[in-house]
Amino acid sequence: MGRWEPGARERLVVAAVDLFTEQGYDATTVAQIAERAGVTKSTFFRHFPDKRELLVAGQETLSRLLAEGIVEAPDDASPLEAVAAGLERASSAMGSMNRDLAPRLKAAVAASAELQERDALKSVSLAAAMTTALIARGVPDTTAALAGELGVLAFKRGYAEWSEGERDGKDELAAYVLAALDELRAASASLG
Amino acid sequence: MGRWEPGARERLVVAAVDLFTEQGYDATTVAQIAERAGVTKSTFFRHFPDKRELLVAGQETLSRLLAEGIVEAPDDASPLEAVAAGLERASSAMGSMNRDLAPRLKAAVAASAELQERDALKSVSLAAAMTTALIARGVPDTTAALAGELGVLAFKRGYAEWSEGERDGKDELAAYVLAALDELRAASASLG
Repeated sequence: MGRWEPGARERLVVAAVDLFTEQGYDATTVAQIAERAGVTKSTFFRHFPDKRELLVAGQETLSRLLAEGIVEAPDDASPLEAVAAGLERASSAMGSMNRDLAPRLKAAVAASAELQERDALKSVSLAAAMTTALIARGVPDTTAALAGELGVLAFKRGYAEWSEGERDGKDELAAYVLAALDELRAASASLG
Repeated sequence: MGRWEPGARERLVVAAVDLFTEQGYDATTVAQIAERAGVTKSTFFRHFPDKRELLVAGQETLSRLLAEGIVEAPDDASPLEAVAAGLERASSAMGSMNRDLAPRLKAAVAASAELQERDALKSVSLAAAMTTALIARGVPDTTAALAGELGVLAFKRGYAEWSEGERDGKDELAAYVLAALDELRAASASLG
C-alpha cells in the first residue's frame, strides 16, 4: 500500500493533527489534509477510510503487538507478567514522532466529542485484544478481563506521562508504561 | 420537561430500540421514532438532542448515583466497599423495562459502529465519575483509577448476566453487579 510514496501515511497524520489544531476537527476536510501532506485524495483513501480513523491509525498495530507479546510470554509468566510483555512489545511501536504529536493529538481529541468516542472505543479494543490473548494462555475469564483493563490503564497513564514528561534518561515509552503497571499492581493491594 | 406527557421519555426509548431492531440504526429517523412513540418531533427534542444520545440516556443519572453512593459510603469503607455502595445505588435505577429492552439494545449496538463508540464513551464516563468520587474521599489517584475501572467492569458484567439470565430469585440488578465485583476482587489476587 502506497510504497511508491514513502512516508505518505506519516505525513498525512502530521498534516491532519496540525489542521485539527489550527482550525478544529469539524472544519477540516480530507482534501485539506491531503493537500497539506502533499498527496492526492486517492492516496489519503488508500491509507484511511476517513479523517476520524486517521487519529486511531495505530489501533490495529497496537492490538496485534499487545496480543503477540502476551502469547509469546514464557509459559510460567503470571497474567500481569504476560500483560507487561505485551505492553513492552506495543510500546516499541511508538517513537519520537508519536511523542511530538501527542500534545496536539490530545488537544484535538479534547475538542471533539466525535473523537472522544472513537478514542474510547480504541481503549475498549485494546483491552479486548489483551483479554483474548490471556484467555488463549488459559487465564480464567474474569482474571483475563481484569488484567486487560489494567493493561489499558497502564498504557494510557504511561503514554500520558511519556508525552508530557521531560526528555530525560527514561526516554522510551515502555519504561513509563511498565512503571505505571507496577504502580497499579501495588495499588490493587489497597483496594480493600 | 415534558411533564404534560407522562412516560414520553420511556416510550421514545422503547420505540427507538424497536425501530433500530426492525430496520437498523442508520435507517431510523427521529421523525419515525417520535411517530412510533405517539409524540411530536418537538417532544423528542425536549428529551434528547439526537437519536444516538437516546441510547445512552441513563448515563448522567448513573454517573450521579455512582458518585452519590461512593461519597456517602461510611468513612471507614475501603475503596472497593465505596465502589460497591455506588454500584448498589446506581443499580436501583435499572428496572424491568431496562431488563426487557437489554437484548434488543445490545443487538442495536452490536450492529452499529457509531453506537459502539458512544457506548464505549459511556463506560469511560462512568469510570471517571467513580474515580473522581473516590479521590474526593481521599483515595490516592492510582488506587481510585483502578477501583473506578473495576466498578465499570463489575457493572457491565453484572448487567450482561442480569439481562441474559433466568428470571430467578436473584432478580435485582444490584445482586448481579455486586457478585461480579466480588469475583473481580477475588481475581485480582491471582494477577501475579
